Amino acid sequence: MAERRRRRERQRPEATADTAKYRQIVNPFEPLKILSDDQIEHIHRSALALLQDIGLKTLHPDARQYYRAAGADVNDDTLMVRFDPAMIEELMSHAPSKMTLHALNPARNVHIGGRNVIISPVGGAPNVTDRIDGRRPGNHADYCNFLKLAQYYDVINVLSMAPESADIPPKVRHLETTYAQLTLSDKPSAVYCRGTAQVADHFEMIRIANRLTAEDFENRMFCHSIINMNSPLQLDNPMAEGLIDFAKANQFMMVTPFTLAGAMAPITLAGALTEQHAEALAGMTLSQCVRKGAPVGYGGFTSNVDMKSGAPAFGTPEYTKAAIASGQLARRVGVPWRSSNVNAANIPDAQSAWESQMSLWGALMGGANIIKHGAGWLEGGLAASYEKFIQDIEMLQMMVETFQPIDTSDAAMARDAMEEVGPAGHFFGCAHTMARYDSAFYAPIASDWSNFGNWTENGSVDTYTRCTNIWQKALEDYQQPPLDADIKEELEAFIARRKEEGGAELS
Amino acid sequence: MAERRRRRERQRPEATADTAKYRQIVNPFEPLKILSDDQIEHIHRSALALLQDIGLKTLHPDARQYYRAAGADVNDDTLMVRFDPAMIEELMSHAPSKMTLHALNPARNVHIGGRNVIISPVGGAPNVTDRIDGRRPGNHADYCNFLKLAQYYDVINVLSMAPESADIPPKVRHLETTYAQLTLSDKPSAVYCRGTAQVADHFEMIRIANRLTAEDFENRMFCHSIINMNSPLQLDNPMAEGLIDFAKANQFMMVTPFTLAGAMAPITLAGALTEQHAEALAGMTLSQCVRKGAPVGYGGFTSNVDMKSGAPAFGTPEYTKAAIASGQLARRVGVPWRSSNVNAANIPDAQSAWESQMSLWGALMGGANIIKHGAGWLEGGLAASYEKFIQDIEMLQMMVETFQPIDTSDAAMARDAMEEVGPAGHFFGCAHTMARYDSAFYAPIASDWSNFGNWTENGSVDTYTRCTNIWQKALEDYQQPPLDADIKEELEAFIARRKEEGGAELS
Repeated sequence: MAERRRRRERQRPEATADTAKYRQIVNPFEPLKILSDDQIEHIHRSALALLQDIGLKTLHPDARQYYRAAGADVNDDTLMVRFDPAMIEELMSHAPSKMTLHALNPARNVHIGGRNVIISPVGGAPNVTDRIDGRRPGNHADYCNFLKLAQYYDVINVLSMAPESADIPPKVRHLETTYAQLTLSDKPSAVYCRGTAQVADHFEMIRIANRLTAEDFENRMFCHSIINMNSPLQLDNPMAEGLIDFAKANQFMMVTPFTLAGAMAPITLAGALTEQHAEALAGMTLSQCVRKGAPVGYGGFTSNVDMKSGAPAFGTPEYTKAAIASGQLARRVGVPWRSSNVNAANIPDAQSAWESQMSLWGALMGGANIIKHGAGWLEGGLAASYEKFIQDIEMLQMMVETFQPIDTSDAAMARDAMEEVGPAGHFFGCAHTMARYDSAFYAPIASDWSNFGNWTENGSVDTYTRCTNIWQKALEDYQQPPLDADIKEELEAFIARRKEEGGAELS
Repeated sequence: MAERRRRRERQRPEATADTAKYRQIVNPFEPLKILSDDQIEHIHRSALALLQDIGLKTLHPDARQYYRAAGADVNDDTLMVRFDPAMIEELMSHAPSKMTLHALNPARNVHIGGRNVIISPVGGAPNVTDRIDGRRPGNHADYCNFLKLAQYYDVINVLSMAPESADIPPKVRHLETTYAQLTLSDKPSAVYCRGTAQVADHFEMIRIANRLTAEDFENRMFCHSIINMNSPLQLDNPMAEGLIDFAKANQFMMVTPFTLAGAMAPITLAGALTEQHAEALAGMTLSQCVRKGAPVGYGGFTSNVDMKSGAPAFGTPEYTKAAIASGQLARRVGVPWRSSNVNAANIPDAQSAWESQMSLWGALMGGANIIKHGAGWLEGGLAASYEKFIQDIEMLQMMVETFQPIDTSDAAMARDAMEEVGPAGHFFGCAHTMARYDSAFYAPIASDWSNFGNWTENGSVDTYTRCTNIWQKALEDYQQPPLDADIKEELEAFIARRKEEGGAELS
């Protein structure tokens, strides 16, 4: 007991001491298979048959023209584009399987594909919520806070676009969100595809911040975006423009069909996955029509709806199964796979945690390369939550820790310690422990391991409440990364000019 | 929208309609590997070396005698037993890899080993807690309620022993707990090893309830138990007696070293796993010394302590990694692997869910055959929680649903539905959906998928609170399985006689 007391008196290690290892995440586990290779081939062939027989309704004339030039059968009256399977397979053979996404800070560059994993925070949420001030529409001050949190935690590798900066007029909003990304963080940027003019502004600001010529920018990936299909089987205008703009600029584009089984996709998982696969292929193929070798990712978002209410559900068993299958389908095509950390809960309680875990384990054990909405997604994506952000950081860090190898060196095997301690002894004070006690285990940020007595004495504080203090402290501790004054000035001059010009139209 | 409204007006399907499939759980996924085959061999050899060089302190003279008779090097002064590796490997080669555990109701028999999974509820908890009445010492009324919940949910396959029936005197407590198991449930029984006399009573009551001769009982497995080592490297008296009693009776015994890294085991995972492996081997070997072919399981419980406070932690990254490695080690030995659903939270909130998920995914993706403490464990095992029980049922059911195959038949591929709906349509009312809407997806018991507006209107009820209603309703709906009147009488007569005799001594 004397030993134990001495040990307790040592200085506490800092919980966030050693998280730089989360900047490059490599998944050591062989990806799970939920479908046989034959079943994957069957879905792949069936998706190609859908594109050949039914086709993709393609609203944008430029997109139809790109498809036509590559050999697709295009009907400009019905807007339907039908594809020969061989054409898709040939074009997709040019899509790269591995790539690097560059950051303002080269130490923050990340690798995409293979066993690499990158994680982004919540995207797309129109609302924002926290335990103190409750739920409110998205606004730019909260978006800046979410960027600071994304910068603060190493396990978040790239930026995102939520909550929505809805208090800024749409024509200039993209200028402010991009400026916030480039000045509050040095991690790779995220772009929304809301029309060619807006995307061009995003690109220009990223070029300025990185001191790139147009050619430099085109030679390396500096940003990423997502387009969704209007499932089933329709490609809308802003999405088509985004695909074209990103392919032209050689930037990273993920194509994510929004295939909720029972709603926008067949109620059977095999049917929904076939639709997802067809739509992902059609979208990524457009990128390849524009520029062979354009970097693209396969987005899997298949989930189900509550057949009682029609409400979307996430982190369900069907979601997890679809995720694992999506990984297999993406690997069949040979492109990186994007999955998500999603849930349908209204509060960061047990349900939000178990649905997130179902999502995350499906993604990570399925071999996901990109995890979107990694931290802060709540309410099926309708709100960005501060406390959920912290809970997700904890969960992500725990999972990434399981990726760290088990050391079986002689020292780690601890034979000396076994001899020192002997039968029915304890290891609290032995030399082997003393040499390692402050870094042996993952130090949680939100989990409370105190016993019931201590926990009660300390006010019976639940996890949700604890997380409020943690995000507040993280915002206090956040440090703005350096950016050269001339770059900042040039960005600000660009924004001022574009505002004078009236901003950029949305498509 | 008309379609959607019609669909909503249909009768709601019952949430618990089709759970009989959970009675036989088969894991389709290839078990994860976290260590190479060489590393597993290294740990296995190092564990054998520990048993050869340091040995196991064995308090019970009968156990030492069994070991000695099988060729071990026994010192009756120091109580140390040292083992030749070849002796252990030879004896362990007799341990079966697959077996069947029998129930009062043959439809509840379960298979152990291979890809089979069986799940038991919380065991060992001295306290019980629920959201209404708070935390209190374990008592028999609550134990009976936990048995009813275990009987009610199909995903719980075998019984357990918690919360402790602490309001019954220890010498007769086992009679009442066994009677409760045999009359409130028809699933396979659980036994505590608290001395030969008590175990004999358990066995006799199980024989009576199943109308078995002593020989019948010995030919088939009707109950299971756990013994823990007094880690490091000590086997205490009740545990040794339990191993001997169960091997003699040919009943299923799991040997679970309690190896918390940094406390009762080296602070390194490799060291803790080596100690766990040595202790598990030594325990299971004793069973084989008593009776070659005695059914045994390999218990993996390696976790870590909070090095700041000394408190045990569960569901940590280290726990998950150790679980996956334990599965590999058990398969190296060729016996079923027991893991657990454990957490260190004080309340069923987000922390309890993410720690449980870390435990469960480690267990299931690692290929666990037996999951102890599957439902209701809280506070690192110090309390059995009603609400956590429900949350765990939800999580277990969700995971077992991921084990169900994805149907890729022509009908499931939904080509007709794709043609019927067409681009940008919806599947709510199509024929393919109508034929499947009431059974397509997992129906949750505790998750609430209503949107934020509805959820708020309905009182913003969190998951913890919702679960109170669910366990209360489950206890109302519980149905006692039939038991022949003469069996019940014989059990009661046995209990009366044993009480008159003063019950059974604890060892």
